[in-house]
Amino acid sequence: MTEPRAPRSLSDCSLALHTDEYELTMAQSFFHHGQTGAVSFEVTVRSLPESRGYLVAAGLEQVLAYLLSLHFEPEQLDFLRSLGVDRDDFLAHLAGLRFSGDVDAVPEGTPVGAGVPLLRITAPRLEATVVESALLALLNHQTMIASKASRIVEAARGRPVWDFSLRRLHGPEAALGVARAAYIAGCAGTATVAAGERLGIPTTGTMAHHFVQAFGEAYEQAAFEQFLRDYPGRAVLLVDTYDTLRGVDRAIAASRATGVPLAGVRLDSGDLAALAREARARLDAAGLAQARILASGDLDEYRIEALVGGADPAPLDSFGVGTMLGTSADAPSIGGVYKLVAQTQGEEMVPTMKMSSAKVTDPGAHQVFRVDDGLVIALHDEECGGEPLLRPVMRGGRVVFDVPSLDTIRACTRERVAALPRDVRAVDSPQQLRVERSPGLRALRDRLMAEGAHRAGVAAP
Amino acid sequence: MTEPRAPRSLSDCSLALHTDEYELTMAQSFFHHGQTGAVSFEVTVRSLPESRGYLVAAGLEQVLAYLLSLHFEPEQLDFLRSLGVDRDDFLAHLAGLRFSGDVDAVPEGTPVGAGVPLLRITAPRLEATVVESALLALLNHQTMIASKASRIVEAARGRPVWDFSLRRLHGPEAALGVARAAYIAGCAGTATVAAGERLGIPTTGTMAHHFVQAFGEAYEQAAFEQFLRDYPGRAVLLVDTYDTLRGVDRAIAASRATGVPLAGVRLDSGDLAALAREARARLDAAGLAQARILASGDLDEYRIEALVGGADPAPLDSFGVGTMLGTSADAPSIGGVYKLVAQTQGEEMVPTMKMSSAKVTDPGAHQVFRVDDGLVIALHDEECGGEPLLRPVMRGGRVVFDVPSLDTIRACTRERVAALPRDVRAVDSPQQLRVERSPGLRALRDRLMAEGAHRAGVAAP
Repeated sequence: MTEPRAPRSLSDCSLALHTDEYELTMAQSFFHHGQTGAVSFEVTVRSLPESRGYLVAAGLEQVLAYLLSLHFEPEQLDFLRSLGVDRDDFLAHLAGLRFSGDVDAVPEGTPVGAGVPLLRITAPRLEATVVESALLALLNHQTMIASKASRIVEAARGRPVWDFSLRRLHGPEAALGVARAAYIAGCAGTATVAAGERLGIPTTGTMAHHFVQAFGEAYEQAAFEQFLRDYPGRAVLLVDTYDTLRGVDRAIAASRATGVPLAGVRLDSGDLAALAREARARLDAAGLAQARILASGDLDEYRIEALVGGADPAPLDSFGVGTMLGTSADAPSIGGVYKLVAQTQGEEMVPTMKMSSAKVTDPGAHQVFRVDDGLVIALHDEECGGEPLLRPVMRGGRVVFDVPSLDTIRACTRERVAALPRDVRAVDSPQQLRVERSPGLRALRDRLMAEGAHRAGVAAP
Repeated sequence: MTEPRAPRSLSDCSLALHTDEYELTMAQSFFHHGQTGAVSFEVTVRSLPESRGYLVAAGLEQVLAYLLSLHFEPEQLDFLRSLGVDRDDFLAHLAGLRFSGDVDAVPEGTPVGAGVPLLRITAPRLEATVVESALLALLNHQTMIASKASRIVEAARGRPVWDFSLRRLHGPEAALGVARAAYIAGCAGTATVAAGERLGIPTTGTMAHHFVQAFGEAYEQAAFEQFLRDYPGRAVLLVDTYDTLRGVDRAIAASRATGVPLAGVRLDSGDLAALAREARARLDAAGLAQARILASGDLDEYRIEALVGGADPAPLDSFGVGTMLGTSADAPSIGGVYKLVAQTQGEEMVPTMKMSSAKVTDPGAHQVFRVDDGLVIALHDEECGGEPLLRPVMRGGRVVFDVPSLDTIRACTRERVAALPRDVRAVDSPQQLRVERSPGLRALRDRLMAEGAHRAGVAAP
């Protein structure tokens, strides 16, 4: 029997202090007053951005890696002291703290809708408190990017889409998460080399304008010849440094002069559809039918759909997508929250909810069932039919499922997205994935609303 | 004489492979063909997002830290071999590579406009190539966040603004860059504890809804009493878990019951202006005039301006700003590019430019001068009057200026932003900061455009 794969972190630093200060002040207060019973928090996205019909859950593996490695270094505890989180007994407790809780989660790559729990943590209140901020940042980021990437991949209709976003990301450290989420959602790979080294994601590259500028306009063909000779069989030549179609002609001439077959050309500006048609004609006329045409330059699902979504698609073979993918530009946040759903009272876990004006939460621990054309949120012990999506992934601080490979996740994702209703997958004005509440959940919600102010919490004096 | 401060990285991992694959294939080709002369690249933002009148340059310190630490580990070189970047002489060269070039840059915190060079690297072509992607990600990220934060700080009109964004960021690793850029731009600090520990940025915290939920609605006052006793003098109580104004009353009662003065209350939902007015009245009536009111909940410069920008501002004392700040939601990318501006030909550096349809670049190495109501981009050796902004920060791979403290940068930033024309600083429909080209630059651009195709590059055969 082989050892199960350990979840991989994307970070080399201790993330224990990547938390909001109030998590630690609250944790100290809970500890000091013995409010240490088990609680359950669930992560949900309350409402979807208008331009999203579904979200693709991602980031679970990094959440598990984070929980497994959680610990406080002595110098971090010293720093907390300087913030006034300074009770000796609490700091001693933090010094020995390891995450000991349970986690249930939907598999990475699962399409979800508004209000659906992506993950539940059940742990001593202190532990569940200190992990909130980093856990949300991990899930929010990768889920946002996977959701955007899934739409772009859909729009490309089978043509490979590559992540070209590194230079426009939230610092270079964000690149691994973006490349990973994009790959899960169906991208062919990334230009970010570290994602290849660290995560085994396929990488690619073309050439930059400054390579051609090194030779000058009159010697564009010489630049192409050098690159073809240096990278036979794989060189994709960037043809728009000066005049795009003249660049195509020079790429053809360079291939002839060197005898090296042209893998492809890249169009990075201008009227991509018209240029692609003319480039295709010239490549074909030159006997270079095998040469592919890659398009890039502020592309997203809307522009790709306009290029290849109609009856007469532009002859583009693949896409490099940067800024719009890496920042999820049309929906640059998704608003995942971490809400208390149940807490120990005496011997049992009792459901809890937040009832402030606009933000009523679903009480209790949940299960999510996939049914014909949508999802049903139910109570965790309610039987609803359909496939249950929340599965045990950690028990007592130990991983209890086979962490799937990225390729496995990727294959499942495409299959599950393909099974979504067509109008949910639409690029323009998608319908939102249908999410219903089960009878049991609705009854619990109504009951708690009615009890209202009369209910005491578990830490009540 | 004290040792100058070393630039700080925000990352603990080797970022050498946080680069686009083509940087390495191009670098290998340059190396193999002896195309190793010095070149100059400049980083500019071609056009500003419509909602920005100016950008605040940020991220230079991390660029310098990145360049100082740049090196390839043996296992990284092995990985490159697997990508077909596999010439022994090139990999041996990479193994010993350290950045040896020069950097000129505008000081962090400088307001800039469209097309203005933020930074110039002059280095052997191979070195200047491999650093592009990470360098751009560092500058693009922090400049984007500092620019957004500057607008939010302006809208708050002197009231402290705190970064509450960690949970909505591009992974937890993005939090240090966000907290740093926000602080430079005038934020009071951050809730992210690691930014306090690693960068010395002031941190803050309030309380979460789940702290109150732990007690239950009937015992909200007990929750407040516990937190007041545990954090006397600093507890800011979150009052909207159930009913906001009842929460305010209970905060007042908790302060009375404990005898602990109330530092403040936090409003996180609802009609913030109306709730603030009523909360202020109740606090004042209770003799708690010293208690501050902090607002949060999807705030940005537009909402803050609506709250406190008019003749009758809501009585809000400070703001916690999360998602909209940390993702620069209305302008989630700024598009900084890295363009070749000059390259060695024989004994001298000659200017170069890109002339493809939409994207003509400014040729030559530049200087930027601050004049009365805008900026002038000139040739680097042209005298234009005004204050020159690009300054030497690295020579021969060594830092040659005093890396300023964050507090120094922050103070200069507020002063420089305050000196901008009022319509450039407007929250709604700002005018863009005026940027002109000098006579020398315009003449060079015209000359090179006219010469056009006749110019050879330096790598011409």
